[in-house]
Amino acid sequence: MTDAYTKLMERVKDIGRLSCVEQLLDWDQQVYMPSGGANARAELSALIAGMAHEKLVADETGTLLGDVQTVEGDFVVETNMRETRRAFERASKVPTELVKEIAYTSALTKEAWAKAREESDFGKFAPHLEKLLDLKKQVAEHIGYETEAYDALMDEFEPGAEAAEIENVFSNLRSATVALLERLGSSTTKPDRSILTRHFPRAQQEVLSRRMSESLGFDYKSGRIDVTVHPFCTTIGGPSDIRITTRYMENFLSGALFGTLHETGHALYEQGLPAEHLFTPMGQYVSLGIHESQSRMWENLVGRSRPFWQCHWEQVKAMFPEALGDVSLDEFYGAINAVRPSFIRVEADELTYNMHIILRFEIERALFTGELAVVDIPAAWNDKMQELLGVTPPNDREGCLQDIHWSMGIFGYFPTYALGNLYAAQFFAKAKEDIPDLFERIAGNDHTPLLDWLRANIHQHGRRYRANELVEVVTGKPLSIAPFVDYATEKFSAIYGV
Amino acid sequence: MTDAYTKLMERVKDIGRLSCVEQLLDWDQQVYMPSGGANARAELSALIAGMAHEKLVADETGTLLGDVQTVEGDFVVETNMRETRRAFERASKVPTELVKEIAYTSALTKEAWAKAREESDFGKFAPHLEKLLDLKKQVAEHIGYETEAYDALMDEFEPGAEAAEIENVFSNLRSATVALLERLGSSTTKPDRSILTRHFPRAQQEVLSRRMSESLGFDYKSGRIDVTVHPFCTTIGGPSDIRITTRYMENFLSGALFGTLHETGHALYEQGLPAEHLFTPMGQYVSLGIHESQSRMWENLVGRSRPFWQCHWEQVKAMFPEALGDVSLDEFYGAINAVRPSFIRVEADELTYNMHIILRFEIERALFTGELAVVDIPAAWNDKMQELLGVTPPNDREGCLQDIHWSMGIFGYFPTYALGNLYAAQFFAKAKEDIPDLFERIAGNDHTPLLDWLRANIHQHGRRYRANELVEVVTGKPLSIAPFVDYATEKFSAIYGV
Repeated sequence: MTDAYTKLMERVKDIGRLSCVEQLLDWDQQVYMPSGGANARAELSALIAGMAHEKLVADETGTLLGDVQTVEGDFVVETNMRETRRAFERASKVPTELVKEIAYTSALTKEAWAKAREESDFGKFAPHLEKLLDLKKQVAEHIGYETEAYDALMDEFEPGAEAAEIENVFSNLRSATVALLERLGSSTTKPDRSILTRHFPRAQQEVLSRRMSESLGFDYKSGRIDVTVHPFCTTIGGPSDIRITTRYMENFLSGALFGTLHETGHALYEQGLPAEHLFTPMGQYVSLGIHESQSRMWENLVGRSRPFWQCHWEQVKAMFPEALGDVSLDEFYGAINAVRPSFIRVEADELTYNMHIILRFEIERALFTGELAVVDIPAAWNDKMQELLGVTPPNDREGCLQDIHWSMGIFGYFPTYALGNLYAAQFFAKAKEDIPDLFERIAGNDHTPLLDWLRANIHQHGRRYRANELVEVVTGKPLSIAPFVDYATEKFSAIYGV
Repeated sequence: MTDAYTKLMERVKDIGRLSCVEQLLDWDQQVYMPSGGANARAELSALIAGMAHEKLVADETGTLLGDVQTVEGDFVVETNMRETRRAFERASKVPTELVKEIAYTSALTKEAWAKAREESDFGKFAPHLEKLLDLKKQVAEHIGYETEAYDALMDEFEPGAEAAEIENVFSNLRSATVALLERLGSSTTKPDRSILTRHFPRAQQEVLSRRMSESLGFDYKSGRIDVTVHPFCTTIGGPSDIRITTRYMENFLSGALFGTLHETGHALYEQGLPAEHLFTPMGQYVSLGIHESQSRMWENLVGRSRPFWQCHWEQVKAMFPEALGDVSLDEFYGAINAVRPSFIRVEADELTYNMHIILRFEIERALFTGELAVVDIPAAWNDKMQELLGVTPPNDREGCLQDIHWSMGIFGYFPTYALGNLYAAQFFAKAKEDIPDLFERIAGNDHTPLLDWLRANIHQHGRRYRANELVEVVTGKPLSIAPFVDYATEKFSAIYGV
């Protein structure tokens, strides 16, 4: 390739490296940093974020972008050029000072959130959130948008996504969900979820988490698992250093168990990205919706399937004899798939989960149109919980303070969670077609067929395709809610006998 | 202050912040990074090191240094200007590419060392070390020196130190040590060190480490303790985020116990530096020799004193009933102060310890004059061990592979350990004068008088004084081996009854 391209990619790699450094600063802050370190950490994070931003928007980047002579037909170069240009153009619109201020403010806001959540005191969090929201509104104005400010932010996580379009998808999803929930509600079968709230000793849960992530294919030579308030997956050094976190609750098995399967799904995607393209767009994930399709597939379509538990049940039962000694496989399978409105998103069942996302989407959108003020979030949250799920959280800790995202200045991210569920169902339907004995293999604790399929069809492409293109390339069809609705209808009808 | 000074300090602070980021990258690599992450980590470390270097040597730094109108009499400004100028001049002589190559190479060499040490195979480490040594020789040539290349590197850790002068100090120290060792050798009293190699359960050792560091005054809100192959102390975010590490051996109590006291001593210095001067020279330690004086004081002059164990003995005995149930305080005090030639520096007694340093000093110096080749290190090491201590290590793991320093490209650092012992004794003698009831307070588990004295006389000054000046300011006399020799003679004569 041309000299200009090589030089440009060296710049891009440095920016990618700085982003990994930022992620280490953040990972450490959440996992190991002593509390006193917060102020200094904010300064370090702001410095690195500012440096990455400066490097991206530097005149030299623009000049190199102009100098590269693209050879048509080389998809690696095309992908790297397209994505670098996009990043440059987006970032050039945002002043470096604003980027640094956001990094600094969000580091402090994250600390404030953790405290406020612990004390279930939204008032302690609100002033921080107001400041951060204001800064993100400024970002949206700098970037520009056609219809609404929120689009400008969503575009960062799901390139090309627009709120009006998502509203449409979510509206259909909501109707289908309500209809299915009503059908299930008419059943006399009520799976007993309380099994999962018995006593599960933490030490055993830790062993289980590790065993489960290993059995899915997580490579501990290139990753690790730690404990945080809010579980996440992060990339510290490309596919060879992926960190996931989980949280252990002795009175709720699903938190760590399915949390770990979820984050392992993210990690398997990252560990499967093409290492030869490390730190360049070709070595990166497509979008957060696609990322979430990987985590949700392993968590739900695999991890909450009957074949998966046919394989693991006896072992898990033996690990928790006190809690599960009197439980049958069918009862356990019912418990982990019990559909019931609840307060905490990450612990929600597959059906009501999307309702939690619709709620956040509506609140975020209203914050950006100005229809909703930060101080009114708790009331709006509780109203919408009642409207969508018919329940009201007893406090803000179990309500609007449960998620870390806003404290990190992340707005427009939540919709990708529901999109992930839809992508996951559509990909998985195709995988089942391509691998006729998929569930037999899963029942035999052999996850390589699915992982190999994901590696070949999704992971290896890096950022070559946009999300909507990838769905078409892999499944031959555009995104649709149908595969999810079909999957959910079939699965839950069977469980509920309706 | 002038605008130029403010701008210069903003630059200096950014460089300080980048240095903290480098330290986090290194800490994480040693404590938590999965092994697969080494290559990517080397790239991240090289990038940050290069950026810090570029920022320091940039024309703008030079211009600002010239623009500042120094107001005489303001020691903060004077210190910051003097040290910034020194750093700028030193760094300007070294090409950025060389700095980056060293960061990259040393990240990989560190991994190679850990493996080679585990397998006790110097051959696996030698080619890496040769490369790193060659790079550091280039650094010395770029920086320049009057007498020998080694001086140029030592100056980084102990500003102003010269090998010829240190050779002189070490020669006197060696003679005095040999004389004292001969006296002790004539005694029929032989403290039984084997008590310490009984079985000490790790979980209990962890509790003890934490309790000990807390009792000395380590603030866990502004720090943490982890486990690594080679214990160290590092600064991630100024006084508010100090990390120490230790290592646990179930068949040797001293490793973790005195290792923790040692690193706690370093940490207390860092936690006591003036926070208002964070990231500037005024907020930094004087030299590594002074740093080591703090760790050795707490480890040895306090932690191996009889009053300290008068206070802690019953508690520790109760924690390890199996190992210490039949041991008396006097026996324990003798065991932790038994003088006996041994292989591992960090586990050596106070007297023979300095011999380990003299050995390393001589080997390093010979590597830099070219008298010694890397492949001949194991033989030279073993010869010198025989000459200085009369013992030969059974393998390289317990010989020339025991220390991490060279794998990090750190040459000229070891002498500061022995200087630290000398500074520690001289400071402590003065502290005893100033605090008449010092040992009564220590015996009462009250370490605040000594810590306050160190805060007031040493820590609060940051980098205001050079090491030799500080010794004069604090004790009224220049550095001398006499306080150490007096202390050791008195203490060990009593223990050995000679």
